[in-house]
Amino acid sequence: MSHNSFGHLFRVTTFGESHGPALGAIVDGCPPNIPLEAQEIQSFLDKRKPGQSRFTTQRREADAVKILSGVFADRDGRQVTTGAPVALVIENTDQRSKDYGEIADKYRPGHADYVYDAKYGVRDYRGGGRSSARETAARVAAGAVARKVIAGVTIRGALVQVGPHRIDRARFDWAEVERNPLFCPDARAAEFWADYLDGVRKDGSSIGAVIEIVAEGVPVGWGAPIYGKLDADLAAAMMSINAVKGVELGAGFAAAELTGEDNADEMRAGKGGPQFLSNNAGGVLGGISTGQPVVVRFAVKPTSSILTPRRTIDRFGKETDIVTKGRHDPCVGIRAVPVGEAMMACVLADHFLRHRGQVG
Amino acid sequence: MSHNSFGHLFRVTTFGESHGPALGAIVDGCPPNIPLEAQEIQSFLDKRKPGQSRFTTQRREADAVKILSGVFADRDGRQVTTGAPVALVIENTDQRSKDYGEIADKYRPGHADYVYDAKYGVRDYRGGGRSSARETAARVAAGAVARKVIAGVTIRGALVQVGPHRIDRARFDWAEVERNPLFCPDARAAEFWADYLDGVRKDGSSIGAVIEIVAEGVPVGWGAPIYGKLDADLAAAMMSINAVKGVELGAGFAAAELTGEDNADEMRAGKGGPQFLSNNAGGVLGGISTGQPVVVRFAVKPTSSILTPRRTIDRFGKETDIVTKGRHDPCVGIRAVPVGEAMMACVLADHFLRHRGQVG
Amino acid sequence: MSHNSFGHLFRVTTFGESHGPALGAIVDGCPPNIPLEAQEIQSFLDKRKPGQSRFTTQRREADAVKILSGVFADRDGRQVTTGAPVALVIENTDQRSKDYGEIADKYRPGHADYVYDAKYGVRDYRGGGRSSARETAARVAAGAVARKVIAGVTIRGALVQVGPHRIDRARFDWAEVERNPLFCPDARAAEFWADYLDGVRKDGSSIGAVIEIVAEGVPVGWGAPIYGKLDADLAAAMMSINAVKGVELGAGFAAAELTGEDNADEMRAGKGGPQFLSNNAGGVLGGISTGQPVVVRFAVKPTSSILTPRRTIDRFGKETDIVTKGRHDPCVGIRAVPVGEAMMACVLADHFLRHRGQVG
Amino acid sequence: MSHNSFGHLFRVTTFGESHGPALGAIVDGCPPNIPLEAQEIQSFLDKRKPGQSRFTTQRREADAVKILSGVFADRDGRQVTTGAPVALVIENTDQRSKDYGEIADKYRPGHADYVYDAKYGVRDYRGGGRSSARETAARVAAGAVARKVIAGVTIRGALVQVGPHRIDRARFDWAEVERNPLFCPDARAAEFWADYLDGVRKDGSSIGAVIEIVAEGVPVGWGAPIYGKLDADLAAAMMSINAVKGVELGAGFAAAELTGEDNADEMRAGKGGPQFLSNNAGGVLGGISTGQPVVVRFAVKPTSSILTPRRTIDRFGKETDIVTKGRHDPCVGIRAVPVGEAMMACVLADHFLRHRGQVG
Repeated sequence: MSHNSFGHLFRVTTFGESHGPALGAIVDGCPPNIPLEAQEIQSFLDKRKPGQSRFTTQRREADAVKILSGVFADRDGRQVTTGAPVALVIENTDQRSKDYGEIADKYRPGHADYVYDAKYGVRDYRGGGRSSARETAARVAAGAVARKVIAGVTIRGALVQVGPHRIDRARFDWAEVERNPLFCPDARAAEFWADYLDGVRKDGSSIGAVIEIVAEGVPVGWGAPIYGKLDADLAAAMMSINAVKGVELGAGFAAAELTGEDNADEMRAGKGGPQFLSNNAGGVLGGISTGQPVVVRFAVKPTSSILTPRRTIDRFGKETDIVTKGRHDPCVGIRAVPVGEAMMACVLADHFLRHRGQVG
Repeated sequence: MSHNSFGHLFRVTTFGESHGPALGAIVDGCPPNIPLEAQEIQSFLDKRKPGQSRFTTQRREADAVKILSGVFADRDGRQVTTGAPVALVIENTDQRSKDYGEIADKYRPGHADYVYDAKYGVRDYRGGGRSSARETAARVAAGAVARKVIAGVTIRGALVQVGPHRIDRARFDWAEVERNPLFCPDARAAEFWADYLDGVRKDGSSIGAVIEIVAEGVPVGWGAPIYGKLDADLAAAMMSINAVKGVELGAGFAAAELTGEDNADEMRAGKGGPQFLSNNAGGVLGGISTGQPVVVRFAVKPTSSILTPRRTIDRFGKETDIVTKGRHDPCVGIRAVPVGEAMMACVLADHFLRHRGQVG
Repeated sequence: MSHNSFGHLFRVTTFGESHGPALGAIVDGCPPNIPLEAQEIQSFLDKRKPGQSRFTTQRREADAVKILSGVFADRDGRQVTTGAPVALVIENTDQRSKDYGEIADKYRPGHADYVYDAKYGVRDYRGGGRSSARETAARVAAGAVARKVIAGVTIRGALVQVGPHRIDRARFDWAEVERNPLFCPDARAAEFWADYLDGVRKDGSSIGAVIEIVAEGVPVGWGAPIYGKLDADLAAAMMSINAVKGVELGAGFAAAELTGEDNADEMRAGKGGPQFLSNNAGGVLGGISTGQPVVVRFAVKPTSSILTPRRTIDRFGKETDIVTKGRHDPCVGIRAVPVGEAMMACVLADHFLRHRGQVG
Repeated sequence: MSHNSFGHLFRVTTFGESHGPALGAIVDGCPPNIPLEAQEIQSFLDKRKPGQSRFTTQRREADAVKILSGVFADRDGRQVTTGAPVALVIENTDQRSKDYGEIADKYRPGHADYVYDAKYGVRDYRGGGRSSARETAARVAAGAVARKVIAGVTIRGALVQVGPHRIDRARFDWAEVERNPLFCPDARAAEFWADYLDGVRKDGSSIGAVIEIVAEGVPVGWGAPIYGKLDADLAAAMMSINAVKGVELGAGFAAAELTGEDNADEMRAGKGGPQFLSNNAGGVLGGISTGQPVVVRFAVKPTSSILTPRRTIDRFGKETDIVTKGRHDPCVGIRAVPVGEAMMACVLADHFLRHRGQVG
């Protein structure tokens, strides 16, 4: 019921505010004897870290992670998990000292300011407090642990749409994702988007995006029927990321336009199970993995932190205008790629353990 | 962790197979002193019931619900909830006696047959067993109880797209939804779709659809940050419905194409809170309701139960073809409308109670 | 969070009131391919059934259980679990039609009448409604399923104290438990108690008791540290049984009087693990099973349903007296034996699955 | 399902090992706008802190707590909770550098060494790792937050038995508890116990104890029927404390010896509810608080860390002897008093929020 936890057997609890002393994650349920070093987690944090290109916020955070518990160096000096909770802490270092006067009182449209105040009667307005995308650093750290739990699964993500501009599927290349700062799998689109985003940034505007996460190597059988569906958990996981407004699997919304003949993924005899002739299902049927790649896409809205004044009200109910001048991402979708990967990893690690418990 | 339960404070557990003796739901956490009669639940079941028009399966089920527990008639004869679990049971009556030989051994593409066998090593193949859409009757029954818990909230659903054909938003009329068997809010589209679906049905084919569910009267403050987000729970709830492949809130996937200027829902001073000038957020910001209508859409794939033979394998791994001849829906999206409403009701009832517990 | 469910991977949800149409249990998480017939469950229900000797309530209930879901007869006609929720229903048949006038308004001391009214503002007073020990029939049914999940474990219970009279440990004989209606493992005590209880019954009085439940064959490693402790879950499970006021493992409260030298269960080399020289731990250390028998005892208070008038108030706050004339057990501890066994089985089945999920 | 978390709406997750860099607790679900300063938590930690008298371990830990998240200083400089998770961290400072050779390989009888190794295949043997009573510092910190949530409830604990020596109930005085280092409410017993424990300590032995925790000011109605019982949660909470072997409420095990006449807590008309003439129920009936003081007792076994050699085996299965020379408590029951108070506070805070959610 805890709203800062997700997962069941592999359970992640996060804490921390944008401008507090630290944030972190407790990973409970990590099986024992898994080699785990802080630098393995660090490499994923570095991918999400702000300030790495001109397309993301210029806040500078080392995002250096420390493991406080749950690991033990055996007699050979090799550090492994013990089955105890793995506590991961990241100190905040660049909470720029500044006057929060304006956002302390005014509600930024498209942000959680108003609803937090209305719900809780108090709000940590410094950088968005708990609602800041900075919380996703803790997710990425937890996701790095999850990847170790499901070592045979490869999880990769890519930006497949920026504003109205989509990649060309024919040019999709995972290797390209590593080469450009936009996590774009299409080299030509990456170039075009860079120019396009420069324009957005110079206008003090922002733009939405679509991210695709693919997990390969998931065996048939993970997930469960009815309310324990793998795809339902993936939908919740992705929707829980800041700014996400839509989630789909496989053919997704396009499936609404298909006939039964076109949508059915036909099967032929393969090695150790069926060979599917298509993957409209996105690797999940009846809530259970089919053995095909699990394919999830999610849409991220543009941040409302822009230079064009927007009409709003303040906490006293008075009408006013607001311009958000802080360090912000012109396209928050970019940094959502490693976060989406982390959520995929956490959901799969949980279902791997659940499957093992339930079916043996 | 139970994969046949959802919700936390308002918690629904369902059971039952398509061709077993009965199916049902246990609703735990229903507050006391809420008037509740079986016929109130029945009216929602009747909406979902099969065989009501030529566009849905011709299976005939009375879907008559009985309340086994959790209610008590007070001295005035008025029946109210007591705070104890409300058990709802629906007997199956039209499990047509037939030879299941073919689907007992063959895996229907697009169905859960293969994954159930692979996961569990056993499968109740009669009518799809637990994976049958018949399970959604239990959801609708539970949803009827949920509506009573959040009596001030109005929840309505509509079919807004069938195959490639969308409604005209300018003609959206809730009253029209009650007048046609397709739950279509656009009278002209309803007529066109009826012809279109007749064609699909005569071809022994099937088609996907998009459903929209709107909840009005949800106050600001329901939901929670991070992993307890109202929109994340709605995404999971809708994705858990059979055949759903995508879920979105407010602007949804279209938000990817918007700029921050266009996407931000500006605010003016209203009575008892802000008046929003648009609802791209779909009534949820930072995981918490804004007081605007909560707007969710989900995409339903076409059923793979069609008359055109599809290539598949059997449980021995042998290649074969399959034609599904049973009584099926040409567009399962139609009957998903009351199911989507029920899921919205259950999620909101849960968050209403959670909000009350957490904030008082 | 559901207060009518317990367990996590093996999860039981019960419903039903003493005088409603039926009660039952949904067993979720039962692994697939376990042979399960209704009569196997029935045999345990028969053990708990009222009216079997002069020492228990004379209410006559067949307690006939039906399996509504979660099983499937395979091609050989052998019925097995499928991994879907197993719904078990028991109809109430002997809700004697009578005037509830007195207990409808008066609060019976030692019963939940007052607190239910105070908490919920409504109360099903017919036979105690949801708070009736009749709910434990559903536990026993679920426990019968749990036993099948942990087929290698033997769970037995016995009455070891009635009022001030304890068994003689030197005469403890499990075979004797089956021979007398008191589940007493000491033949001589059984005889003495029968006379003693006849006196209690004739006086219209009641008396407390202590029950011991022993599970043999539990391997080392079930359970978990900190808040997932096997003994903590057993304590909650036993304390959740009606009328239980105390729970202990192994040496229990007597451990308070022991020195470290006497309490430590020393170890010698055994086959496949240590051989313990004593079992003060009751089979659990650090929350995890040691491989020794798991030994739990719990104390049951005397029912307050007695013929001697007790001072109380009614629901209007007025002072009055009450005499409870219904059909009641002079020693509710007797029928708590099969209930305690069932709870032990459910907790162990849950921890078996959790262990398998967590550690593999 | 997380085994390092407890509670539902007020949910505590702890982490950390005895000799790791730090331990701590995440308190999720703490309502907003509760004033909370680190020093308030510190005062409870100081009560549990080791090394405060000759009767507890001589390990020296400052046990200084830091709040990393979930609080915000409002415009008046007053720090309050925000509804976000409160992360509490305590650094370990006195992990004495020493050779763990012996306990690294040998299993201490009565400790979790063997079962951790058997379950996890790896064990942090430094000071007991995760199974160390040091984890209870995190519970005490969380309990301090819980107390603020239920500000009207007074929770106090006392040692009521050491070895075979009980207090004289006629001399019970809460004020006395603060005056002696044994948390003993009977001045004369405190003196006697001090001498007795000096003997135990000088012998290098250890002894068990019984602790009583009383919560006054709990209104009628907290708790829930069946598996959400307040007393079941208290039983689990207390049993989850290291070394606890038994738990009872009110008359507890003594209720087994009572007749219904003697056990029933009669009622007279009181202000705003009944006035009970006794409290054999310990403040809980049917799992729900009655408005009387909630009274829980639990038995703590003697630590097995003693100077007398005990027979055991090592991790290779070889027979050996062990003497535990470290800094240990002759009576771990003493420091269990503030821990028991903390668990009572956490359980009550959780049920307060649950009650509010469920019933409003």
